[in-house]
Amino acid sequence: MTTRVSVVEDILSANDKLAASNRARLDAAGVFAINLMASPGAGKTSLITRTVEALKDEFRIGAVDGDIATTLDADRIAAVGIPTVQINTGGECHLDAVMFQSALPSLPLDDLDLLIIENVGNLICPASFKLGVHASVLIASVPEGDDKPYKYPVMYRGVDAVVLNKMDVLAAFDFDVDYFRQGVEVLNPGLAFFPLSCKTGEGLDAWLAWLRNEVRKYVSGDSGAHS
Amino acid sequence: MTTRVSVVEDILSANDKLAASNRARLDAAGVFAINLMASPGAGKTSLITRTVEALKDEFRIGAVDGDIATTLDADRIAAVGIPTVQINTGGECHLDAVMFQSALPSLPLDDLDLLIIENVGNLICPASFKLGVHASVLIASVPEGDDKPYKYPVMYRGVDAVVLNKMDVLAAFDFDVDYFRQGVEVLNPGLAFFPLSCKTGEGLDAWLAWLRNEVRKYVSGDSGAHS
Repeated sequence: MTTRVSVVEDILSANDKLAASNRARLDAAGVFAINLMASPGAGKTSLITRTVEALKDEFRIGAVDGDIATTLDADRIAAVGIPTVQINTGGECHLDAVMFQSALPSLPLDDLDLLIIENVGNLICPASFKLGVHASVLIASVPEGDDKPYKYPVMYRGVDAVVLNKMDVLAAFDFDVDYFRQGVEVLNPGLAFFPLSCKTGEGLDAWLAWLRNEVRKYVSGDSGAHS
Repeated sequence: MTTRVSVVEDILSANDKLAASNRARLDAAGVFAINLMASPGAGKTSLITRTVEALKDEFRIGAVDGDIATTLDADRIAAVGIPTVQINTGGECHLDAVMFQSALPSLPLDDLDLLIIENVGNLICPASFKLGVHASVLIASVPEGDDKPYKYPVMYRGVDAVVLNKMDVLAAFDFDVDYFRQGVEVLNPGLAFFPLSCKTGEGLDAWLAWLRNEVRKYVSGDSGAHS
């Protein structure tokens, strides 16, 4: 058992070093990067397309899209007119710093302000692998149920903001927003929280204001530098 | 890279051997076991409680519940009055044959006809680890989106039936059942398919009839023996 644990530690520490080097590369180019994580179907791609549509006249935006198969999501993102790189993980349940590093040469980093990374749809694996970003964001969604922070604590603990998507269907589900929020608060007190609907646009403004502020702070040199 | 692949192969082959031994143990006791897999929040626990309520006078049923944290689901299952064992995976994104083996001594196998295993909420990892069951079932749900068979092909290819849950909210989502079904058919032609709603009970009868038939075939010695 000792051997196994030590191997995992080695992998994670090697990943962390590469993540730091990715981060240095982004900083050299002045690109603020966010890592979007979520269950399959929570709305990562929809949030990205909504965000790009709203902010593309303000910031130069690029995207990296991680999936185990197909370019369906990358195609949707590229369709809103930004440089998009697809990473096919070949079955792996998460992106890691090596995969992210391999995507960087295909992006026009010097011409970007904001890079949005869509991780593989998974509430467990992506939480363990740093990429070298400036902020990590989790997208939950109403149909998944209000117990998810309690059941997937590692993911909720490691992020800088939580988006709760699909608020337009709240009435159709037994979802107690206070109970959900309470679970988040215990794990990650004071976390930025954005209930919204990518479908109707309800609540998007608060999310966009937060992201706009994070990118501006970074560009002006007053970077928080969390993840 | 070669070393890494060979390690993964070793782990999987060791897992397969243990899975075969789990299967032999279930067969010795005459217990038909199913492995339920799904994204977080697709409705695994709801399908289990619905199924137990409907079939508990017909079959003696037990459950194994896998989660990375909490006993929330196991508590819900135990509340319908069947023997339930919780496996806390300690962060792992799937159950494996070792974990399942460790749960077996806590179950009254000789007094069971049907054992329902709830895997960890994940559309990727559980597909790679056999447990030693007689059938694997994937629960998809309408809010996740109709593109999931295309994006998570390994999971859809490896199962013996697909349940499509939350049909009661179909009208609120852009979900094309034919497109979803087509994606499944390409990967797994002729797969048993059960659109239903655990909330309203709509469509449950067809699922229960399929499961009842599988258990009866097994008990009568005419077992299909797939997974």
